[in-house]
Amino acid sequence: MPEFLRLQPPKEALDLLLTHLEDRLQAELVETDQALGRITAAKILAPHSLPTFARSTVDGYAVRAADTYGASESLPAYIKVAGEVLMGMAPEFQVEKSACALIHTGGMLPEGSDAVVMLEHTQLVQAHEVEILRSVAEGENVLQAGEDVVIGQEVIPKGTILRPAEIGGLAALGITQVKVRRKPRVAIISTGDEILPIGASLEPGKVRDVNTYTLSALVKRAGGEAVSLGIVPDLVEALELKVYQALQTCDMVVITAGSSASARDLTAQVINQLGKPGVLVHGVNVRPGKPTILAACALPGQPAKAVIGLPGNPVSAFVIAGLFVVPVVKALQGISADQYKPTVKACLTLNLPSESGREDWVPVRLSLGSSGWEAEPVFGKSNLIFTLSRADGLVCIPPDATGLGIGEMVEVILLE
Amino acid sequence: MPEFLRLQPPKEALDLLLTHLEDRLQAELVETDQALGRITAAKILAPHSLPTFARSTVDGYAVRAADTYGASESLPAYIKVAGEVLMGMAPEFQVEKSACALIHTGGMLPEGSDAVVMLEHTQLVQAHEVEILRSVAEGENVLQAGEDVVIGQEVIPKGTILRPAEIGGLAALGITQVKVRRKPRVAIISTGDEILPIGASLEPGKVRDVNTYTLSALVKRAGGEAVSLGIVPDLVEALELKVYQALQTCDMVVITAGSSASARDLTAQVINQLGKPGVLVHGVNVRPGKPTILAACALPGQPAKAVIGLPGNPVSAFVIAGLFVVPVVKALQGISADQYKPTVKACLTLNLPSESGREDWVPVRLSLGSSGWEAEPVFGKSNLIFTLSRADGLVCIPPDATGLGIGEMVEVILLE
Repeated sequence: MPEFLRLQPPKEALDLLLTHLEDRLQAELVETDQALGRITAAKILAPHSLPTFARSTVDGYAVRAADTYGASESLPAYIKVAGEVLMGMAPEFQVEKSACALIHTGGMLPEGSDAVVMLEHTQLVQAHEVEILRSVAEGENVLQAGEDVVIGQEVIPKGTILRPAEIGGLAALGITQVKVRRKPRVAIISTGDEILPIGASLEPGKVRDVNTYTLSALVKRAGGEAVSLGIVPDLVEALELKVYQALQTCDMVVITAGSSASARDLTAQVINQLGKPGVLVHGVNVRPGKPTILAACALPGQPAKAVIGLPGNPVSAFVIAGLFVVPVVKALQGISADQYKPTVKACLTLNLPSESGREDWVPVRLSLGSSGWEAEPVFGKSNLIFTLSRADGLVCIPPDATGLGIGEMVEVILLE
Repeated sequence: MPEFLRLQPPKEALDLLLTHLEDRLQAELVETDQALGRITAAKILAPHSLPTFARSTVDGYAVRAADTYGASESLPAYIKVAGEVLMGMAPEFQVEKSACALIHTGGMLPEGSDAVVMLEHTQLVQAHEVEILRSVAEGENVLQAGEDVVIGQEVIPKGTILRPAEIGGLAALGITQVKVRRKPRVAIISTGDEILPIGASLEPGKVRDVNTYTLSALVKRAGGEAVSLGIVPDLVEALELKVYQALQTCDMVVITAGSSASARDLTAQVINQLGKPGVLVHGVNVRPGKPTILAACALPGQPAKAVIGLPGNPVSAFVIAGLFVVPVVKALQGISADQYKPTVKACLTLNLPSESGREDWVPVRLSLGSSGWEAEPVFGKSNLIFTLSRADGLVCIPPDATGLGIGEMVEVILLE
């Protein structure tokens, strides 16, 4: 049996993990000006309509539309000016028949008026009389009360990522605090006898702890809070203690395994000892990143939490974190995996062979060619972190393809 | 003369403004784990090669490749096992001719060896002898010293946005602090007699200060630090004092004008009084957002700083901030405007008429149709902030088009 048949396709593996994570995180209240990028924990209803009053969209004269019917340059309508609407004030007069009021953009329409004639279609003939040179229809140049939002309307659904547009919307409605999901606390554990903290001097045989840094950054980008728990040697007891601490204090756990097969098995062993259901997936049908572990562990009296074991190679860890860690961090905030990822269509500059039956992820560099973006594969073993640094994005070769050809248009998922 | 001929195209207007801003901001040192999203202020050179020693990429036996030539399942090579390479340690022995060493993924190749045979292509016959069932070439299954990065090599250019990949690269090289551009401090001033702080109770004729909130969020997203200076009434003296304070304490100034024409002229007047060269562009050929002001002001003894006057309507302010404020915030950090913006190709579901000679920006909502993404225009006057909240992105209708047709493929710039 070819090996890929024994390995889980990534989409199925992720779905299996998500079914074991029951609870979304609690909500917390944050100030609206601090809520950028957070996820709403409840739908938001408009506490009042927007705008709250009919407003002019131009500088001009607020009129009764009927008084302007038939008006033209050759046959103007003559209308009395009853007053001026001051910005930010409710007019203290009404507009009677054959009367109007000077009004500015954003000004509140006086009672009795139902349209605005633009200034350039009028001419002041005396201090209190104006010629109307063009007729307007009822509602013309007017923003009606409730035209943006009606009181009680759901303006922002539950599970929405708050962008600048939504922050502005909340401000418009006077909502100064908003209920959002708590940021998931993600424990990050590096394992391996060969791993050094990044500030330590290098020793022969040792390498620095790259993964804690890339993974923390990816977790932050996904809306989580990265909690680095340091480096653990390849010892069952040491790893067990650390993962136990992580499960007690955090909402999910990410472990980068030592590089060797035995070190990776150790991760699975520790997870299975700590709580049920334990390891759900051991090995996924993706390159790089085959020796991935997906698990859920429930400590006594706690809900099951995701525990993800990543390969130790920096590029594998990065790709697999994108496929599993980022979606779980988002799911814990109540949002489904990316609806659409930011991508760029580009033309492949080289042939990319791939084994059929396996999903391949290839880093590419983008450059602007004569007929659009070109994607050039950045080759390098999955131990080479700077392969990623040279790349602008990743291209996925689906499992049913035996590669992609030169000149083919591909969708590049941008590394952000 | 048609009006659009008197208005500046946005690209030219931006370039003109940028030529008046001499100075990039100073650099500051930040911790690598706090540097996500910051911009490098100097190129980064590798302090040593990566990897620093030859490493195995598999679990197996480190050999002299020459000793395996001709080896096969039917005719194995028999080789003495000199020892085991422990993870994170320099081997204390050499590999002599016809000898090998047990090694794990990531282990340091012992002196004398030049390739690794995978464990599955070997068979241990005695405690200290192994059958090699397949030959390997020199360098096979080995990551050479310097294969990722060579000492002294430029690994990250000046002006790079630090993504998770670069953060990991810095960690790999033991670089714990990095020189980045200071975050530009962007003063945000809302003007208008009708504007209320968002926490205040609504009064007839008044609206809340939406723009301070959307603009602060956009500035943060672009890497700047938003400094809200509050709301100023439509009075020359009040605005002049506020802009003067802003120029003294911040790196650039964004003013959202009151809605009426006279309020907008007030902004231009104040800017011209405060410093040279003053207003550079008054009116751009874009809808929404025509009454935009781009200016540069130098207080005595200071470099010229950008002062941007935005229309007061929330949608116009948002679109124009994307075209001018965001690129200037990035330029101050030493990066050019977006090389590529995250976009999604989608099929337009409606005709979008547009006046020729003017660049139009239309909010659209994305949905997944039977043959890919579909973009449905979200219509609404530019005063309606929730128009943006309902949109996933913006479509640009270029000035040489008279609109876009139903079924046309468009590039949707995602609102993030």
